[in-house]
Amino acid sequence: MTSPTLLVLDADPLPRLGRLTGRARVTHADASTLAERLPSADVLLVWDFTSHAVRHAWPGEGPRPRWVHTASAGVDHLMCPELAASDTVVTNARGIFDQPIAEYVAALVLAMAKDLPRTLELQREREWRHRESRRVSGTRAVIVGSGPIGRTIARTLKALEVTTALVGRTPRTGVHGPDDLDRLIARADWIIAAAPLTEQTYGMFDARRFGVMQPSARFINIGRGGLVVEDALAEALRRRWIAGAALDVFEHEPLGPDSPLWQVPDLIVSPHMSGDTVGWRDELGAQFLELYERWEAGKPLLNVVDKKRGYVPGH
Amino acid sequence: MTSPTLLVLDADPLPRLGRLTGRARVTHADASTLAERLPSADVLLVWDFTSHAVRHAWPGEGPRPRWVHTASAGVDHLMCPELAASDTVVTNARGIFDQPIAEYVAALVLAMAKDLPRTLELQREREWRHRESRRVSGTRAVIVGSGPIGRTIARTLKALEVTTALVGRTPRTGVHGPDDLDRLIARADWIIAAAPLTEQTYGMFDARRFGVMQPSARFINIGRGGLVVEDALAEALRRRWIAGAALDVFEHEPLGPDSPLWQVPDLIVSPHMSGDTVGWRDELGAQFLELYERWEAGKPLLNVVDKKRGYVPGH
Repeated sequence: MTSPTLLVLDADPLPRLGRLTGRARVTHADASTLAERLPSADVLLVWDFTSHAVRHAWPGEGPRPRWVHTASAGVDHLMCPELAASDTVVTNARGIFDQPIAEYVAALVLAMAKDLPRTLELQREREWRHRESRRVSGTRAVIVGSGPIGRTIARTLKALEVTTALVGRTPRTGVHGPDDLDRLIARADWIIAAAPLTEQTYGMFDARRFGVMQPSARFINIGRGGLVVEDALAEALRRRWIAGAALDVFEHEPLGPDSPLWQVPDLIVSPHMSGDTVGWRDELGAQFLELYERWEAGKPLLNVVDKKRGYVPGH
Repeated sequence: MTSPTLLVLDADPLPRLGRLTGRARVTHADASTLAERLPSADVLLVWDFTSHAVRHAWPGEGPRPRWVHTASAGVDHLMCPELAASDTVVTNARGIFDQPIAEYVAALVLAMAKDLPRTLELQREREWRHRESRRVSGTRAVIVGSGPIGRTIARTLKALEVTTALVGRTPRTGVHGPDDLDRLIARADWIIAAAPLTEQTYGMFDARRFGVMQPSARFINIGRGGLVVEDALAEALRRRWIAGAALDVFEHEPLGPDSPLWQVPDLIVSPHMSGDTVGWRDELGAQFLELYERWEAGKPLLNVVDKKRGYVPGH
């Protein structure tokens, strides 16, 4: 029996793959060669999670990988009708990013409450200007997205004595449904976007939603850029409909030097780094190997994505 | 019986003092008039906690206030041998600043772990540069100062899954003594100065202590400027003995535009604002009134400072 063919869509070297020597024929592809190599692959590992190549190269019919794993929490960059309709199993990197992203959100919440960006500006200007800042304890956060990342954000903010509400696609114990969203964001101090990007969530933070928020509210997106109508957010900040925002993800990444978003008042722009703490690539590699060993042994995979919904369902 | 005379050393208007109308003769002083007015005052309220005037104006003998309250946690700015030797009771603003300062420290810890100052610099340069950041969870903090502020810092960092150690003047359950300090800071990721400024703590963070710290360590001072030998810290940062620092307090405040500290690499400078959240002056005013009412009724005061030690002792 021949070893399975593992095709890796990569940009950077992938740690730990040497462990598969003799157990898999490892081949590589980039956006230009993916379509040609996909039909002969048993497994596709999407290591370059910034690539949209899978969506374009996925074969309509004929041979195709039986399993696709993406080294990311979101699957929006690879899902397409043909992949959704196929019997190919899709898995994701559930769990790896939860705590780093939750800490990153806490860092932004505290930095905004304590006016840290302004402190750093005044330091550059060598100006001693005392200001009052805000308490975080006792404020209210709404976290949109009730998966492991959203839940870890809620737990971390609760530890800072913030009152939290989670909003998910389906109301259940501890999770509000979409019908509660406007009522909740209307009285929130912090609105945090941590939802998967799907047809339902695309553009959900639009001019109307920023209009519902309090003038003192601050908005944070660590989910996917497409959740936010970026122009509407910029306008809401310029008009002071809300007090501040932070975006770690954007509709088009990387953000080019010409983007107007770099200079919107009270907007913090970061380069899609919220989940990426030292060692993250190694953790992603180890997680894939663990899944590969289950697959090799014929055991059921973990982190299986509901391809219709676009995320791993359940608690 | 005449109303007691309340002398207020102030710079800003003091909230809530109108409640004492008819119950106290309220007079005011600044640095130039304090010495002349002190002998006729029954109570001195040091509302301008940045002033060192009390130390200079306190009468060596003769009539003097029976009670001095300072609207600050530290009493270093007013203590002098004559006040320490007198039977005047000194009280402080214990409790008001605990949570705001703890949140401020958490903001600095998270901002440094997530490289937020560099993110803001790159944003100004319109440059998308992904970096790996650090997890806070699992790191180690040493908090020097085991009073309510230090303990609240420890509790807040623990909530972020940081392992914490408290160091105080006297070892007791949950608090290390000074003998453990070097051993603890040698393996800490975060060293936080939250001690009162006394003869024992003046200059305790000197070149030798920065030399003991790990190259990855970061140092935060929200206590008093005098705890730190500022030149030694600047040198430790320039030589990369430690990875970063944040100072909210300084030997001489306000920091002048010529101070070299504004531009030390990896040093965050803020204008003594860690405890000052919206409403803080009102809280300080309310706390003084509560103490005044106890004093007026002949009940024992709270937050009584041990004048020899320079802080309110006990848990």
